[in-house]
Amino acid sequence: MSLKKIVAQIKNHDNFLVSSHVNMEGDALGSELAFSRLIKLLGKNAVIVNEDKLPYGYGFLPGVNTIKKYKDNLKGVKFDCFVVLDCSDIKRTGEVYRMNNEGKPVLNIDHHISNTKFGTFNWIDPYVSSACEMVYQLYKKMRVKLDKEAALCLYAGIVTDTGSFRYSNTTSTTHEAAAELLNFGIDVVGVYKNIYGNLPFNELQLVAHVLGEMKRRNNGRVIWFEAPASLLKKYKARYIDLTDHVMNFGRAIEGAEVVVLFKENLGVKNEVRVNFRSQGSIDVNAIAQSLGGGGHRTASGCTIHGKLSDVRRQVMKQIDKALEKLS
Amino acid sequence: MSLKKIVAQIKNHDNFLVSSHVNMEGDALGSELAFSRLIKLLGKNAVIVNEDKLPYGYGFLPGVNTIKKYKDNLKGVKFDCFVVLDCSDIKRTGEVYRMNNEGKPVLNIDHHISNTKFGTFNWIDPYVSSACEMVYQLYKKMRVKLDKEAALCLYAGIVTDTGSFRYSNTTSTTHEAAAELLNFGIDVVGVYKNIYGNLPFNELQLVAHVLGEMKRRNNGRVIWFEAPASLLKKYKARYIDLTDHVMNFGRAIEGAEVVVLFKENLGVKNEVRVNFRSQGSIDVNAIAQSLGGGGHRTASGCTIHGKLSDVRRQVMKQIDKALEKLS
Repeated sequence: MSLKKIVAQIKNHDNFLVSSHVNMEGDALGSELAFSRLIKLLGKNAVIVNEDKLPYGYGFLPGVNTIKKYKDNLKGVKFDCFVVLDCSDIKRTGEVYRMNNEGKPVLNIDHHISNTKFGTFNWIDPYVSSACEMVYQLYKKMRVKLDKEAALCLYAGIVTDTGSFRYSNTTSTTHEAAAELLNFGIDVVGVYKNIYGNLPFNELQLVAHVLGEMKRRNNGRVIWFEAPASLLKKYKARYIDLTDHVMNFGRAIEGAEVVVLFKENLGVKNEVRVNFRSQGSIDVNAIAQSLGGGGHRTASGCTIHGKLSDVRRQVMKQIDKALEKLS
Repeated sequence: MSLKKIVAQIKNHDNFLVSSHVNMEGDALGSELAFSRLIKLLGKNAVIVNEDKLPYGYGFLPGVNTIKKYKDNLKGVKFDCFVVLDCSDIKRTGEVYRMNNEGKPVLNIDHHISNTKFGTFNWIDPYVSSACEMVYQLYKKMRVKLDKEAALCLYAGIVTDTGSFRYSNTTSTTHEAAAELLNFGIDVVGVYKNIYGNLPFNELQLVAHVLGEMKRRNNGRVIWFEAPASLLKKYKARYIDLTDHVMNFGRAIEGAEVVVLFKENLGVKNEVRVNFRSQGSIDVNAIAQSLGGGGHRTASGCTIHGKLSDVRRQVMKQIDKALEKLS
């Protein structure tokens, strides 16, 4: 039982370094914060260190102001256990994993099927909706009473990773967790509004623009969107994560099996972030992995160096191949 | 206890006529079907009669092919009790209420705060997410065992009326219900895909077009969208219900308190359907009621006769007045 071993390790240590992946979203942040809260409720110490700065929309999560950045002065940070959450590969922590140069035990808690089992102890469960749902299970297993702070962080992570209970990772157990978490007086609309509902008008105009130029190929089995750097600059996009908006739109189209977003990374020349969503027939984790990325069977991503149009051609080749195998 | 009285009436009768409102959506259909299923599981008879035809996307709900239309030959339909679900006013059944010309008892089961209490027995609970959640409670109260058919209908109604557990009507109890319903082996993605995810490419292009022309007024407190008949014709819109797409988009904008969609009804000259969503500060049920419509505090609608631009002016006046009272 990997969960049992994780529990034993938590009991055996006192000072925890906690981290997650770069390009953080709700589940990464929520699981870090709720895990650290658990450690504190046990009377122990936890410090969260991340490579990236806090993403837009998550400032409302209790505890975010205690999160340290890898670039901060971290000399005072002592730990005897390194906990990595929601992270398929240790390198996805950015540089943070370098802090463990003394080789303290690594607890790897994750729900990505592509997880490389990099931990000293690995608790990987691809059948759980989110890392937050795993941390929720940890509270139960360790009989630590949840409080409102923890509940809010867990709920936020579950909501973001399940697309608000719409994705295939949503189970009866996910709803049971949500039912308990809402009892702590969580403002459902407030959470959603904080994360998704505080975008400047111009950034939503950008979304509309990207949606308006939606394209299809392979008899409509592939829907794709493109966000060139020029467009991101035109609309002065600073906060928005286009992915959810665009993917949910593409998914709504009859016959669409794969939805792809190509986004030029601002500030880095010829670097394209590619995000994939699948309706289930195509394994987009395999496609992303073949291109140096990873994720889940139905949601994945990778970063490719090259010109936008070249990257698109390269990616489409992989998708066409995968679709061909199906039919 | 109004629920108790409803239970007593169900026990006392054998043949039920079941209906809901015009412009049906998931909760109307789901609650009709799950209620009729309950009646059948009790060994009694139920016939569903609706004014409108089945909306797009709901053909997958078990039992839909037994639903009759008011225009069908209904001579054989005998009933001793008339059950109206998810319907704020008896007139919102269209012409269906005329079938009750012998004055059989009317059971009014609804969660709209604007309900006119038109029933012989009224069970109105504006604190419940959906009529489907009320019917779920009815199964519990009457100790009728749910089956997969009922579970699927109830789940579909809850999902659509809560915007997939995102709206303020979502409670811990809603998630508890969902947790139980999913145990019947419901395909979460399939439900969502059926209802929202089978739209033709051109209809989503229409959505993108409408989104692209989003406007704001009153210092960005009002976001509005317009779908003139010409646009609906240009994109050959047949199936789409623009409302959800457009509203969720508008809601995501910083500072937006009210989102409004003006849509010209096809086939009727100078008739505009107006839909409202509020973030909570403004009571859009009051606004819609003052214009001859109704709904909930945060989601409502009305139909106004007049030219699109005139209707818009008329509606904006009401919204400005409501916002003025606030500040």
